[in-house]
Amino acid sequence: MTNSQQFDALRPFYAMEILAQAKQKEALGEKVCHLEVGEPGAQVAPEVREAVATAVLNKPQGYTHAKGNASLRNGLVEYYRQQHKAIVDPDDILITNGSSAGFILAFLSGFERGAKIAVTRPGYPAYLNILSSLGFEAVEIELSPDQSWRLDAEAVRDAHSRNQFDGLLLASPSNPTGAMIERDEFKQIVEACRELDVRFISDEIYHGLSHGMNETTALEFGNDAIVINSFSKYYCMTGWRLGWMVLPKDLVRRTEIMAQNMFISAPSMSQLAGEIALKCRDYYDAQKVQYISNGLLLTRALQEMGFADVCQSDGAFYAYADISPFSNDSVYFCQKLLDRGDVAATPGVDFDRVNGNKFVRFSYAGSRETIEDAIEKMAGFLSRPL
Amino acid sequence: MTNSQQFDALRPFYAMEILAQAKQKEALGEKVCHLEVGEPGAQVAPEVREAVATAVLNKPQGYTHAKGNASLRNGLVEYYRQQHKAIVDPDDILITNGSSAGFILAFLSGFERGAKIAVTRPGYPAYLNILSSLGFEAVEIELSPDQSWRLDAEAVRDAHSRNQFDGLLLASPSNPTGAMIERDEFKQIVEACRELDVRFISDEIYHGLSHGMNETTALEFGNDAIVINSFSKYYCMTGWRLGWMVLPKDLVRRTEIMAQNMFISAPSMSQLAGEIALKCRDYYDAQKVQYISNGLLLTRALQEMGFADVCQSDGAFYAYADISPFSNDSVYFCQKLLDRGDVAATPGVDFDRVNGNKFVRFSYAGSRETIEDAIEKMAGFLSRPL
Repeated sequence: MTNSQQFDALRPFYAMEILAQAKQKEALGEKVCHLEVGEPGAQVAPEVREAVATAVLNKPQGYTHAKGNASLRNGLVEYYRQQHKAIVDPDDILITNGSSAGFILAFLSGFERGAKIAVTRPGYPAYLNILSSLGFEAVEIELSPDQSWRLDAEAVRDAHSRNQFDGLLLASPSNPTGAMIERDEFKQIVEACRELDVRFISDEIYHGLSHGMNETTALEFGNDAIVINSFSKYYCMTGWRLGWMVLPKDLVRRTEIMAQNMFISAPSMSQLAGEIALKCRDYYDAQKVQYISNGLLLTRALQEMGFADVCQSDGAFYAYADISPFSNDSVYFCQKLLDRGDVAATPGVDFDRVNGNKFVRFSYAGSRETIEDAIEKMAGFLSRPL
Repeated sequence: MTNSQQFDALRPFYAMEILAQAKQKEALGEKVCHLEVGEPGAQVAPEVREAVATAVLNKPQGYTHAKGNASLRNGLVEYYRQQHKAIVDPDDILITNGSSAGFILAFLSGFERGAKIAVTRPGYPAYLNILSSLGFEAVEIELSPDQSWRLDAEAVRDAHSRNQFDGLLLASPSNPTGAMIERDEFKQIVEACRELDVRFISDEIYHGLSHGMNETTALEFGNDAIVINSFSKYYCMTGWRLGWMVLPKDLVRRTEIMAQNMFISAPSMSQLAGEIALKCRDYYDAQKVQYISNGLLLTRALQEMGFADVCQSDGAFYAYADISPFSNDSVYFCQKLLDRGDVAATPGVDFDRVNGNKFVRFSYAGSRETIEDAIEKMAGFLSRPL
């Protein structure tokens, strides 16, 4: 592979590009409504803030065990017991520098170089970029709004029969659609992977943010999946860079060695924060209630403004809206929406390189005021020609 | 390549293994002197602690620009101007999750997959493990204690004539030997790389910790090298996971996109901490004085105990001691030293897979009391048969 081919598959993450441009506008004194990045506007729980402030004043923050502090891993064992009635061995848990490090480790440790990993389209854009950067091949399984953007076991088998992949990476709730998979279907997907000898990677970083459906972890159906999770979303800790993996026994040691060398350890203050955050579910559930309310408001408003196919999300905090009544170029649309409407949103091409020009993702993780302000601005923006 | 071949080159990082065992001993109530991990025992500067405590109490810590906060990058521009009279464009600086992320990005962005990267032996063990994990080939250039463990341009040319490599990764001050390269020789190495069409990666994470020699950055000789640095060592911020890269113009955009996707951003509180730490050089220079004093004490004591070839380091905070008078198996030696002597140290096999059984690395970044206690314990340990 030549140098240019190697980097051809690499695309910028437009959400971050838009964020950078929005920050430039703000530096010039303009006000921007941030609906582009999947980032809660709320602070971490008060108990977390106070514990971290005390820790940073009083003791050095050194490297931790490469797998993370035992107390945090034990907290996660308890989390799985309480939330999912699942028994997890703390030795199988590895604390990571955000879920980002979890994906890198999952691919490098779980698969031979060049392996084929299936992902959904639309899906989280970093999946494709990390896979191509590391020399893996992505196999995309197309989802449809007609099926509420949900993957099912039949589609997995169909896709595998056309192009035999080695791994399947799936997020439920999903980014950018907020779609969730029902427990029975989830189980059938796990079982299909097992039959097809496909290693299943379950991206569970939006767990805690279901709008009503039961959340399913792959750990409910055995210990052969790689589970990736994060403190960024439900626990409002994006900038803290803290996540975790639950690994199948055959990958624990190898992944630990890779983590030692590639990351050394996750940030120590963030690990302390995470440990305490696990015990603050009342605070975080109250944030979720706000997202659900924001989501209802925004979804209804988008429908009224004339966006097509804006369905209510099952979870997370995203509205994935069809912009075809307004434009067939989501990058141009988002650019103009930021420039003239002062609303930052993410073009669908981030999530779908084939059909993404038809869609825009709006995050409603911000405050009520932000959403209300954004709705007013968008209505004004759409009342004039693009 | 089969799965087993792919992972064959991967070795555990014994420093972290020993740390884990030492922590187990401590959990049982035993006292251990930590000389195994390259980690300062001191806190961050008081101004840093206070600013971070205030920030965490008062505002959400969100994602930052993928390249890091502009204020931190501008602080680094000023750092290069003051310390090295070097002019750096803030756009060429990328803030990373520790130097670890810097190495990953440097390899993936700077080279075609499968490229050959030269490193010194002995050297930082993660170099080899990251290279093999990412599918690159390491070419080792052997250093000798007879040349004070210093690389020179002639050795670079010799090695290249035998096995043409695409990149050279070099640390000065170095881990594990503390060796530094004089400015003139450094310049010749940079020029040799340029002539040979070898991309130079300068690992400068021990900058600030010279014991007397002038520190040289590759940026003094042009902008075509990839420079990697970190807040971990001089700024006592190991567990904060913060580093930075200075990139050649041709790699800036590609590396930014990779960083967006693979890491999103570096921890936001750590970025604030780093920005303030840059202004606290008086505090940090006082820590360095302590390391130098510790190093003199420890080096003399090791010589008196009968270790061979313990030379005074030029910088960093390591003594790389020849244990051949006592053992020809550094893993066994370190295990026994921890079990019976309660001193944790790192076997040379971490740094040198060929001759490492002859050496042990002692870190003297801890407190004076730790070093004095460790010397007493080692003397007792060595007075009995292994």
